[in-house]
Amino acid sequence: MCSNCDYTIHGHHHHYGWDHSIPPADRVAPGSTLEFTCLDSGNGHFTPDSTVADVATLDFSKVNPVTGPIYVDGAMPGDALKVEILSFKPSGFGWTANIPGFGLLADQFKEAALTLWTYEADTLAPALFGKHGKVPLKPFAGTIGLAPAEPGLHSVVPPRRVGGNLDIRDLAAGTTLYLPVEVEGALFSIGDTHAAQGDGEVCGTAIESAMNVALRLDVVKNANLATPRFTTPGPVTRHLDSDGYEVTTGIGADLMEGARAAVSGMIDLLCATRGMTPEEAYMLCSVCGDLRISEIVDQPNWVVSFYFPRIVFS
Amino acid sequence: MCSNCDYTIHGHHHHYGWDHSIPPADRVAPGSTLEFTCLDSGNGHFTPDSTVADVATLDFSKVNPVTGPIYVDGAMPGDALKVEILSFKPSGFGWTANIPGFGLLADQFKEAALTLWTYEADTLAPALFGKHGKVPLKPFAGTIGLAPAEPGLHSVVPPRRVGGNLDIRDLAAGTTLYLPVEVEGALFSIGDTHAAQGDGEVCGTAIESAMNVALRLDVVKNANLATPRFTTPGPVTRHLDSDGYEVTTGIGADLMEGARAAVSGMIDLLCATRGMTPEEAYMLCSVCGDLRISEIVDQPNWVVSFYFPRIVFS
Repeated sequence: MCSNCDYTIHGHHHHYGWDHSIPPADRVAPGSTLEFTCLDSGNGHFTPDSTVADVATLDFSKVNPVTGPIYVDGAMPGDALKVEILSFKPSGFGWTANIPGFGLLADQFKEAALTLWTYEADTLAPALFGKHGKVPLKPFAGTIGLAPAEPGLHSVVPPRRVGGNLDIRDLAAGTTLYLPVEVEGALFSIGDTHAAQGDGEVCGTAIESAMNVALRLDVVKNANLATPRFTTPGPVTRHLDSDGYEVTTGIGADLMEGARAAVSGMIDLLCATRGMTPEEAYMLCSVCGDLRISEIVDQPNWVVSFYFPRIVFS
Repeated sequence: MCSNCDYTIHGHHHHYGWDHSIPPADRVAPGSTLEFTCLDSGNGHFTPDSTVADVATLDFSKVNPVTGPIYVDGAMPGDALKVEILSFKPSGFGWTANIPGFGLLADQFKEAALTLWTYEADTLAPALFGKHGKVPLKPFAGTIGLAPAEPGLHSVVPPRRVGGNLDIRDLAAGTTLYLPVEVEGALFSIGDTHAAQGDGEVCGTAIESAMNVALRLDVVKNANLATPRFTTPGPVTRHLDSDGYEVTTGIGADLMEGARAAVSGMIDLLCATRGMTPEEAYMLCSVCGDLRISEIVDQPNWVVSFYFPRIVFS
């Protein structure tokens, strides 16, 4: 963590959804460092004693609480907020659920499912997935963004051009993120921390896990960004890639259907070769497998590929 | 190469499009090794002396010639053809073009553009992209597939469940590919070799380059694959990832529009920071940048990200 951050933003400064009328939790100068206590996306609903029955009682009006907002002096519409993601202090407990009605294959997975994870917060050693394997960890914040200009309360679920629930796996320690500012002060909030996730987050949840996040906020004047962009200082998949990948494909004129076919194919493969249930395979794919667009130009059929890292079974 | 392949399939055994009535170039036993001479996707149209004017005279009835077909004894519909990709012998010359009407951003890039590449075929050292940078190389076959069951001649452009113009960057040396067999003998062909390509192949062409390919063909009985799948023996991006990535995003309810926005954002960024023309940036993105689906579950907005490897400028 930042050993001596300028500000500490405690978890009781959280809000549900985005609304630029929410009063700032604090006001900081550009260049300040802050440590945020982030609640997990279930707002503490799941514990090491939870069972699958608890999925049904999750309060959707309280999902994805974000800690903030932070008013950054001098940030104005048209600027970018520069977010240097410094470090994470994970809690060591996490959960992954299939929540009925949610996820890429919601039509195929209609029953609730729940995986609980414990991991070593200090070493971040790969986390056991039951008897089946181990999942490499890489903490990041699933929801990281700014208040939109449009008045009123906006759902936290969809990401927007100002960021929010981006669920980009590589917004990890060392990455610098640039977010388009739409309101005075930028009004930055963060939460929905994940211990691991694959590109796509296909079942709808990652390894959802409360943790503290340290970062530095700065302002880039007149950046005029259309959408978020970021820079990573080094490789992004080395925690996953050393033993290669099993890859399935979806081929056709619709990228969404291609993605669904590729993930369905991987679930079938994992069930056939690893003795998992489909629900287990689906959740495992969500926390460590990656959706990539292999080609998007060979009319009229595009190829979407799903990459599952073999290191999980090594 | 396979120093002593069982079969050599010369480049004059090529065909345009897929048709299971095309007579086999050879008939081999399962487990055989073969070396194919692959023509480039332009069928030799471009040479080191070519200019952008030559793009207009490319004969589209002769693009993507594939070498084959090979009849594999015992392969029957419902089986999979197992293709162990052993090695590549590249030619050292390649081209990348923006072909009007073709590519992810065809509406924005209406003029022909051409980049010629020379590279060291033995060392595969990163290839110079003018004054701007160097592109790491990783040879693979863009088109690799089987004859479809449906009678008649089928365009080589779209990939299908039997493979074909998959343009999957990781079908490189060491990868094992499984293709669904639809006709007796499988009828395997290969071509459209690339010296480098990013996930997406966004401008429609890669570093198109003639080369020889060595591989082993085998049959997996009753595999009943829906679509191609493959296994990589190790990492797939280490030639690109050591210095991290610049990443742009597209956010919205349509994956295609998200992909277009992410690539457009990267072109803008490269032009602003590296002094390229938009056409140069577009072609460079195609040969080394990757389209990934960061999240596909946060209704109604998905995030598509475009990863550009910073090593190109190191």
